[in-house]
Amino acid sequence: MFIVLDGADGVGKSTQVGLLADWLRSLGYQVVTCRDPGSTPLGEAIRGLLLDRHDLHMALKAEMLLYMAARAQMVEEVIHPALAAGKAVVSDRYLLANVVYQGYGGGLDVDTLWEIGRAATGGLGPDLTIVLDVPPEVASARLGSKRDRIEARDRDFHARVRQGFLEEARRSPDQIVVLDSTGTVEQVQQQIQEILRRRGLVRPV
Amino acid sequence: MFIVLDGADGVGKSTQVGLLADWLRSLGYQVVTCRDPGSTPLGEAIRGLLLDRHDLHMALKAEMLLYMAARAQMVEEVIHPALAAGKAVVSDRYLLANVVYQGYGGGLDVDTLWEIGRAATGGLGPDLTIVLDVPPEVASARLGSKRDRIEARDRDFHARVRQGFLEEARRSPDQIVVLDSTGTVEQVQQQIQEILRRRGLVRPV
Repeated sequence: MFIVLDGADGVGKSTQVGLLADWLRSLGYQVVTCRDPGSTPLGEAIRGLLLDRHDLHMALKAEMLLYMAARAQMVEEVIHPALAAGKAVVSDRYLLANVVYQGYGGGLDVDTLWEIGRAATGGLGPDLTIVLDVPPEVASARLGSKRDRIEARDRDFHARVRQGFLEEARRSPDQIVVLDSTGTVEQVQQQIQEILRRRGLVRPV
Repeated sequence: MFIVLDGADGVGKSTQVGLLADWLRSLGYQVVTCRDPGSTPLGEAIRGLLLDRHDLHMALKAEMLLYMAARAQMVEEVIHPALAAGKAVVSDRYLLANVVYQGYGGGLDVDTLWEIGRAATGGLGPDLTIVLDVPPEVASARLGSKRDRIEARDRDFHARVRQGFLEEARRSPDQIVVLDSTGTVEQVQQQIQEILRRRGLVRPV
């Protein structure tokens, strides 16, 4: 089982990834968690270029391809071996975020991004992506003033990103579900578990 | 005018790029030289990951995408502005090397690499690529024992790379020409100039 939690920055993804992993372990799963970009030495080095180097001018296409490179490494080094060993994988973001941020947000061609993503991942995608959705004002307030290079972009950019998540969920309802995440951490986690149960993705093991 | 010199490591590309730029300047061109990967702050950071970090495990697809990212940045930051300003660009390597090394050498799908390359560069390719070709023993001897991560690969890999250059030149004779480069530095440079003249790519300006 391969589950991705995605959504805007500040929406609580990493907290929910941890809670979801705990719950799956309580059901008997062996669980590997990861974050995209990252979770490998190469991926973390790329993440450093992408998010922390405010001094570097970065072309949108270069940014997009760096995300793809980090993901290609994570698939080979982390996700594929974990799935092959029968483990469950829970990832904080994956290819959808790349499509939404650099495509809907940045303006690159969305279909091309899905194609490059297929080449980068060898076609390995999640069983389900849950998009944690909150109104932009809520995400912005949660984020506060300490922002990385991507988070610091303007309001229009983040509005296009949100529309991108909603649009992709509409196009692929079997693979992407949007969850209103304005509730408490515990409420949102309950709803995530409910979605996985309802879709028959978890079972006692 | 956008000219690329390519070929195996140790074949004298960077020397010939410098001499070619000097010659073009003597004809009245304004010339920008670059090397792929590299020639931008981001590209040089990526080059460091690709060539100097022997400690990093790197998946072939991640490697391929890092080259693509560095090139996307170089196109936007260096090549496109230079061409738009009417300058000549001479690059030490470009997309062909990516196709040959990670495709023919590494085994990734060659057509997919050309496609990703088109997306990464916005379709901006050289007027001509000259592949400096020498027998593998000659290239290996010139290289000596100090090798980077790619150069250190085995003999079979380098044989596939050479075959890849020859095959791509056969497929696209208008865009790629192979030049026997076993002669002296001066002889090879004469032949490069001769090729550019014969193809009508240079003129007094």
